[in-house]
Amino acid sequence: MVKTIEYLDGVVRMIDQTRLPNETVFVDCKTIEDVGNAIRTMIIRGAPAIGVAAAMGISLGANSINATGYDAFFAQLAKQCDALGQARPTAVNLKWAIDRMLTVTKAHNHLPVAELKQRLKQEAMAIYHEDIATNEKMGGFGQSLIADGNTILTHCNAGALATAGFGTALGVVRAAVNAGKNVRVLANETRPFLQGARLTAWELKEDNIPVKLITDNMCGHFMRKQEIDVVVVGADRIAANGDVANKIGTYMVAVMARQHGIPFYVAAPISTLDLTLASGDDIPIEERSADEVVTLNKHRIAPEGVEAAHPAFDITPNEFVTAIITEQGIARPPYNESLKALAGKA
Amino acid sequence: MVKTIEYLDGVVRMIDQTRLPNETVFVDCKTIEDVGNAIRTMIIRGAPAIGVAAAMGISLGANSINATGYDAFFAQLAKQCDALGQARPTAVNLKWAIDRMLTVTKAHNHLPVAELKQRLKQEAMAIYHEDIATNEKMGGFGQSLIADGNTILTHCNAGALATAGFGTALGVVRAAVNAGKNVRVLANETRPFLQGARLTAWELKEDNIPVKLITDNMCGHFMRKQEIDVVVVGADRIAANGDVANKIGTYMVAVMARQHGIPFYVAAPISTLDLTLASGDDIPIEERSADEVVTLNKHRIAPEGVEAAHPAFDITPNEFVTAIITEQGIARPPYNESLKALAGKA
Repeated sequence: MVKTIEYLDGVVRMIDQTRLPNETVFVDCKTIEDVGNAIRTMIIRGAPAIGVAAAMGISLGANSINATGYDAFFAQLAKQCDALGQARPTAVNLKWAIDRMLTVTKAHNHLPVAELKQRLKQEAMAIYHEDIATNEKMGGFGQSLIADGNTILTHCNAGALATAGFGTALGVVRAAVNAGKNVRVLANETRPFLQGARLTAWELKEDNIPVKLITDNMCGHFMRKQEIDVVVVGADRIAANGDVANKIGTYMVAVMARQHGIPFYVAAPISTLDLTLASGDDIPIEERSADEVVTLNKHRIAPEGVEAAHPAFDITPNEFVTAIITEQGIARPPYNESLKALAGKA
Repeated sequence: MVKTIEYLDGVVRMIDQTRLPNETVFVDCKTIEDVGNAIRTMIIRGAPAIGVAAAMGISLGANSINATGYDAFFAQLAKQCDALGQARPTAVNLKWAIDRMLTVTKAHNHLPVAELKQRLKQEAMAIYHEDIATNEKMGGFGQSLIADGNTILTHCNAGALATAGFGTALGVVRAAVNAGKNVRVLANETRPFLQGARLTAWELKEDNIPVKLITDNMCGHFMRKQEIDVVVVGADRIAANGDVANKIGTYMVAVMARQHGIPFYVAAPISTLDLTLASGDDIPIEERSADEVVTLNKHRIAPEGVEAAHPAFDITPNEFVTAIITEQGIARPPYNESLKALAGKA
């Protein structure tokens, strides 16, 4: 499995997820602005991966600052972080990573700037390694919910490509496979960006995990035919009450799952929780360009001049969420209590 | 508005719906086999349009038969019709048109073959003209269910392009517009064939009816935001109990509509009813090639070797259907009674 993201000498290297699966191309980001652009254009995507990329980008940004005094250094770094924080609004992990890097900076205000830069690089690498460990722990909890022989539906890509490695929703799948369970995945193709067709299908195939692709409008049909046992998806932000922001289309999958008595699980690290928000209605939903809907591989699929909508995420109200799988354990309703308890353990 | 299908001298001309909206290309079918291929490859599609094409194709087939005696003529025609009937299994209008053409043939077994051929051409043209008239009547009934200012969600293309003209679901929209109501349409793009993006958006734009395109996974989000007032779709076959076979994805739209208290209407001519089938479980669901899911405009959108499923239709159980709009009036539950009554009037 190729690495989603790596921090090499002065360079953050990412696999270009806009060009998978047809081309395996790597993009080298040399500045924090490069990283911001990579996040904005979805060269890298997936809430946890965005958090890791942001931390590495901040380290690049710190290294570019010429100031020798702490106050000037911090002021410039904070300004860079403000710009980076605008890259994508919905995933809270971007904000989380920025907050963590700035908190570390403040905590080490006594260090010479050169050493502080080293410390920030260490922190970025810590976030990277913690993310993989977190996913493995999450997988361990999550796989207990998967039975031998299950067909698992997933939406978008919450896999190794959406994280530093192993994946959140697909981490649960991988952990089930590692535990000796025979499972297969039905992957929603996930229009308009086709993360399911391009990324989920690709990484599961690389790992020899059985996967079948369906269009986003098919899962109801297969649920009705009793061909789906369980749904596992990732999340971009989870409010205190358990409302989940995730890739557009997740809400429809959740409603269909409840209609058919199929459990609907969300796998996400504690860093995805935003307990400052009472409900999902407070989560900002990114509106992306309509061009991403009406063109595909630069080929126009709708008549010239036709308008399109492109909300990139939707909110799944907590009543549709059977459980939330985190690296600290599994939260069940009422989420206001269970999520707070798990966050407290982190 | 261009004509979906025309019967010219010895030629059935169709607009190639696989190449819209980027190219306006016409295909001339000179034999019944040409028409069968056009139906199979979706150059023409939409249940009523398939019925019209089949009738015209049978006329072409009849004209190609050299037999001078009725018995030999009928035997050859019936054989041609058997082959044509295999073109697509789900839409009952194909079978309906074949039955009607063969019934007319039998009823005129006293005519010389040359005159019988003329009679079959007349019948094909009658089916064509009746289809437009039917859609206009259906629109008249259906538009009474649409309020001024409504946003109407539709799935696939049940428009002029799916019929001889005017459309079924989009006929309801057109009739509402003609009645002076301000309406707008949200069109599901309808993967994998993109009938919504390519055809519905195109024909509504041609008619200056406001239309906005969304991907199939977005309608739940917009229902939750109260931006959709009513759903109108077409049908490929309706069982005696009101279960509806329609383009894959219709079922999910219907479940979402009920979840949000939004009326879900099906607009379809009486010829779409199959009262010989007790329920939708008896309707054959066409499985099309997985290539149509994993490639788009000959460009591969999923990794080589990844499997895909492609059921072309799904069944929406009657409990999700608010009403069925036909040219004989509007059927409401219980459908076993109401559909039988409307069919009796036809």
